[in-house]
Amino acid sequence: MKQIYCDNGSTSFPKAPGLGEAIGKHIDFNGYNISRGGYRKAYSLEGEIIEAREALCRLFHCTDPKNVIFTPGATIGLNMVLKGLLKKGDHVITTSMEHNAVVRPLTQLEKEGVLWSEAQCDAQGRLNVEEIRKLIRPETKLVLAIHGSNVCGTLIPIKEIGSICKETEIFFCVDASQTAGSAFIDMEECCADALIAPGHKALLGPQGIGIVLLSKRMAGAMKPLFSGGTGSASDKEEMPELLPDKFQPGTLNIPGIIGLKHAVDFIEKEGLAAIIEKKQRITDAFLEEVSNMKGVRLAGLPSGGGRCAVVSLDFVNLDNAEAAFTLENEFGIMTRCGLHCAPHAHKTLGTFPQGTVRFSFGYFNTMLDIRLAAGALNRILSSR
Amino acid sequence: MKQIYCDNGSTSFPKAPGLGEAIGKHIDFNGYNISRGGYRKAYSLEGEIIEAREALCRLFHCTDPKNVIFTPGATIGLNMVLKGLLKKGDHVITTSMEHNAVVRPLTQLEKEGVLWSEAQCDAQGRLNVEEIRKLIRPETKLVLAIHGSNVCGTLIPIKEIGSICKETEIFFCVDASQTAGSAFIDMEECCADALIAPGHKALLGPQGIGIVLLSKRMAGAMKPLFSGGTGSASDKEEMPELLPDKFQPGTLNIPGIIGLKHAVDFIEKEGLAAIIEKKQRITDAFLEEVSNMKGVRLAGLPSGGGRCAVVSLDFVNLDNAEAAFTLENEFGIMTRCGLHCAPHAHKTLGTFPQGTVRFSFGYFNTMLDIRLAAGALNRILSSR
Repeated sequence: MKQIYCDNGSTSFPKAPGLGEAIGKHIDFNGYNISRGGYRKAYSLEGEIIEAREALCRLFHCTDPKNVIFTPGATIGLNMVLKGLLKKGDHVITTSMEHNAVVRPLTQLEKEGVLWSEAQCDAQGRLNVEEIRKLIRPETKLVLAIHGSNVCGTLIPIKEIGSICKETEIFFCVDASQTAGSAFIDMEECCADALIAPGHKALLGPQGIGIVLLSKRMAGAMKPLFSGGTGSASDKEEMPELLPDKFQPGTLNIPGIIGLKHAVDFIEKEGLAAIIEKKQRITDAFLEEVSNMKGVRLAGLPSGGGRCAVVSLDFVNLDNAEAAFTLENEFGIMTRCGLHCAPHAHKTLGTFPQGTVRFSFGYFNTMLDIRLAAGALNRILSSR
Repeated sequence: MKQIYCDNGSTSFPKAPGLGEAIGKHIDFNGYNISRGGYRKAYSLEGEIIEAREALCRLFHCTDPKNVIFTPGATIGLNMVLKGLLKKGDHVITTSMEHNAVVRPLTQLEKEGVLWSEAQCDAQGRLNVEEIRKLIRPETKLVLAIHGSNVCGTLIPIKEIGSICKETEIFFCVDASQTAGSAFIDMEECCADALIAPGHKALLGPQGIGIVLLSKRMAGAMKPLFSGGTGSASDKEEMPELLPDKFQPGTLNIPGIIGLKHAVDFIEKEGLAAIIEKKQRITDAFLEEVSNMKGVRLAGLPSGGGRCAVVSLDFVNLDNAEAAFTLENEFGIMTRCGLHCAPHAHKTLGTFPQGTVRFSFGYFNTMLDIRLAAGALNRILSSR
């Protein structure tokens, strides 16, 4: 049976062509460390890491390669920003579509006296930015928004939010977990102070590496959530203010960075516009198929505009888990069923507590995949 | 010129044979996620991750595979334990040989009211465990000790410290950054509540993966330093108490874990005893060569007993950085010069602020490497 992977929102697969091989060769032939020993192999590797920073700056219009902080993933990146920036009495605004990677750290911070408001999105996950403006108060220090919903794919207008934040001098943080590598994101244009992304989703890199891109003022305002050896100012017991060292203690995930660089090179070569266009086309085709089906409710926006390649279905007369099981067991179609670590989003969309069956498409899905997935859904629905 | 890598204390190289290839194949052919989608590929991968946990339990005598927490490295692991356990008013005892991965987090915690004492080691880095006992007070919650010095290789008697901690009901944390994979460590025997190690040093795995092995009582007492989606209890806004989920939010570094498993399999196949014996033999040979040299001071213990494969030299009539440069430039010998992110250890050893030139040997160094390194040192010293 043909296997059709539709869980790219969890991790993309396949990854950028040749990714594993590139990482493997690096490890077997060049697996040294950087910022520690002062020998040629280390310096030459340091050069590759700088090239990775530069490639990420080009992709996201980040102004300074030093402000690219490599993290183990988006979750730790979000913790670094939230817990590094917010103190007792500070107020933060998020949307009602956030992932537990934001909800759980903020739940922890609330206990320490951080104040938190959620701007309510509508039942399709859309945000009217005036909802953000209404919640702003003198103590508001940060607005954080998920750019593309990991549940239903709806996009949040980050440019408009950024402009409100700029005007009110509030820090703005974009969680681009679903959109980095599958949407245009211009940090400067959307006035983002922090852009957070995993390397292993639409950026097509390996698991274990992520990024936080910081504005200069954000880097200055944040304290390091964790600290340790940086290979710099080693006589000092405090973390150096120098970037990226301030937020990068310990040995970096160098194979992960080499891999991410390989993946971003692939994205640059293919062209982000072409990638977005293909994923849009596939998503549109799937949405069109689904819109004609009886017995299944689409969560979020019905049409292809204003969304990324994530589509969630709620089965009316069938348990969602059973549907997901049948999709794989009988048709080889891999999806993700449940709450997708985003209970607030599901509440917003009216799909809590049952959750949904999520189809999330990647650059390597094809129109044939869509036809087969639609065929499988029709067979499952008609057998009810 | 033959290249001789003597910086295994920074990261081991080469890694376990076939490591890069194993990781590369995993990424290119099996790079799925776990604990998210409910399909066969994910379940089968989950099985491999469980096998990695089991292998690590065997190696370190950890009682429960669920208590193996995968981390991005030892630094973040140390931050997780220190910041997850210690609260205002708590007292912690360390040794005077700790790395900045401990010194810097504790410097941060001191500002929040955590109390910290250092047990003084002697000028060769040795600890008399009575120094620990003397510092214990009613508020003492944790003793943390670096098992093997990353500066001079001296081992700290963890079994004796563990026994004091057990008797006094104080948590005991072992930083095994230099010794995991190159010394016998039995968590049960040394009554360790937390064992922290990087995967990329003597465990011969890739950078970007590390471990924290926890006792049950430590896992219960620690709060998660970072939180987020775990794929479990997703409707809850707090982290689940379930292990390892409590301390593992976000997508894991699965390629890193697959790699670490490959490396630990190699260590089990070779036999830890044989690895230790070979590294000891090489280190002894180097120490013997160095003991006859004029113009260089050995930091730490002069003989092979009570130490791991890390040897630090302080040049008397030559700048250490110049010596390290010449070693590589003229003889192809890669070392690490400076403070090794451990200013407290250098102060203890009397090598602050100038630091040392560190030779750290790995399982793949040979007696020829030692002869060539000794020859190079003799040439450098005699040219002065």
